[in-house]
Amino acid sequence: MTNPSPSVDLRAPMREGVLRAADKIAALLPQTPVMPLDLPNGDTVWCKVESLQPVGAFKIRGAWHRLTDLTEAERAMGVVAVSSGNHAQGVAWAARRLGIAAKIVMPNDAPAVKLAATRALGAEVVLYDRPGGEDRDDVARRLTSESGATLVHAYGDPWVIEGQGSCGVELAAQMECLAGGLPTRVVTPCGGGGLAAGLALALPEAEIVPVEPEGWDDVARSLASGIIQRVATGAPKTACDALQTPATFPINFAVMTSRGMQGIAVSEAEVRAAQRYAFSHLRLVIEPGGAAALAAILGGKVASDGRTAVILSGGNVDPAAFAAVISEA
Amino acid sequence: MTNPSPSVDLRAPMREGVLRAADKIAALLPQTPVMPLDLPNGDTVWCKVESLQPVGAFKIRGAWHRLTDLTEAERAMGVVAVSSGNHAQGVAWAARRLGIAAKIVMPNDAPAVKLAATRALGAEVVLYDRPGGEDRDDVARRLTSESGATLVHAYGDPWVIEGQGSCGVELAAQMECLAGGLPTRVVTPCGGGGLAAGLALALPEAEIVPVEPEGWDDVARSLASGIIQRVATGAPKTACDALQTPATFPINFAVMTSRGMQGIAVSEAEVRAAQRYAFSHLRLVIEPGGAAALAAILGGKVASDGRTAVILSGGNVDPAAFAAVISEA
Repeated sequence: MTNPSPSVDLRAPMREGVLRAADKIAALLPQTPVMPLDLPNGDTVWCKVESLQPVGAFKIRGAWHRLTDLTEAERAMGVVAVSSGNHAQGVAWAARRLGIAAKIVMPNDAPAVKLAATRALGAEVVLYDRPGGEDRDDVARRLTSESGATLVHAYGDPWVIEGQGSCGVELAAQMECLAGGLPTRVVTPCGGGGLAAGLALALPEAEIVPVEPEGWDDVARSLASGIIQRVATGAPKTACDALQTPATFPINFAVMTSRGMQGIAVSEAEVRAAQRYAFSHLRLVIEPGGAAALAAILGGKVASDGRTAVILSGGNVDPAAFAAVISEA
Repeated sequence: MTNPSPSVDLRAPMREGVLRAADKIAALLPQTPVMPLDLPNGDTVWCKVESLQPVGAFKIRGAWHRLTDLTEAERAMGVVAVSSGNHAQGVAWAARRLGIAAKIVMPNDAPAVKLAATRALGAEVVLYDRPGGEDRDDVARRLTSESGATLVHAYGDPWVIEGQGSCGVELAAQMECLAGGLPTRVVTPCGGGGLAAGLALALPEAEIVPVEPEGWDDVARSLASGIIQRVATGAPKTACDALQTPATFPINFAVMTSRGMQGIAVSEAEVRAAQRYAFSHLRLVIEPGGAAALAAILGGKVASDGRTAVILSGGNVDPAAFAAVISEA
């Protein structure tokens, strides 16, 4: 578990693990709300609002499941994580609560609000040069080999995948109550595929639709080609910092391909429109990456059927950036 | 019920009515979340997030309780309401769902987002000249006497007070689960005192603290003097459009005085700071009036004791206004 590069075999995430994670999360945190949202075309979709988690994103789920499963000896040596900010805060939050030392490798161009929040949770932040092309996994490997700490990968980790799946367990129960049945389709923002794979394990009957920013749609291309693809060098700038992952991992890809998933890409303008729609219709602050799935729905790229759920995955965004988005015509 | 001026006797709102309203609301809508919020001083308060109601404010509660208690004959003649926007949307939402015609008297300087949302819910909007000093209750009286419609007053109505109290019933159950006990103190934005009186009936053991904008603190002055006071002519401008009520009603005042309430006033700068705090710490869009209670807490004007609840009462705010607030240093 100290070197989760794609070449290393990891145990497969399991549905049983998802259910166990869901029990642990239910004992820790209230369910996040599921809110109906009327679309301009008259349809209603069901929004699972993960931006209302204590750290402002679903990442608290996987971090909690992973860290609570560490042995006492592993806890004593600390944890290391790599993240632009949401996984960082999830791991920092769980580590503080469990009394575990946490070092988080973050890009030097991460949103200021995410850097500050991670430090405020007591984690040590180690910056790396994302624009300069420094490999964040190299930095993390150096930290773990120095200290014996456990690397908690943001998505390529079976516990993390299972933990994120707890979102789907909650969603199933809530939709049965609110929408009269299980979700038939769940549209979700996708970075490395941790949440998408977790939702798939949680909801065996649902279609899971991963959504990425244009140019960062390595998962969509991987699913289409059947082979893991990387984001191309020189990929365009995106406001979706949370979804800027270079490539998915085999354990995520195995779950996604087993379900025949197909990915969707959304434009930056579609993401901003979705942020504005959530602002005015749901009174929610959603970060760009957190609005990607809603962007696919509003952009007409995914159909809704009355039992379609949309994950609003995070809400950590700098005030100036959010002000600019909602001020746009 | 067609002329609820302060000189008319109305039945008193009752705790039994609050509990009946809570049952009706529970059958209609999911509970709004209660979220813990860490203050800069290290204390935690419990935020009841009414901005996440379908119309973006708690007003849906009182409107639903009132309209569902109308007779068939009353329903056929329609309803009239007066509101800067949140009660407007609450009545319009309930009326559409029940197939009742609704006319809403709104000030011509109401936030554009509230005017548009009220019309989108199918209500007929009748504008009056607030800056010009036109009496909104006169406009409403003319409409009701013309049509025989029932006036659903925004706060001076026993059903409306009872309906708003359902928020307190939910809060009590949620705090017992999350905070290990009933709320000891509930800090709430206050316009005419509908929510404050409803919360008092719902929570017989709690201290209820109504919070108003400076210069619009007629309830605080009324409670201090023992006699209903009006907002002075030439009161300062406030961004808290939802709290710009000229005076409370005897039925509200009776409940508030019976509990020995004392009111608090907050400055415009304190309100904006509270909106920014909710943005960055809870990822919520809260309108100025909806943030007044949090402003009192953050401004150190009300103490917290670990079981203090804060009502975030609404989130309907124009994008440009919200962008300006979060862009402030």
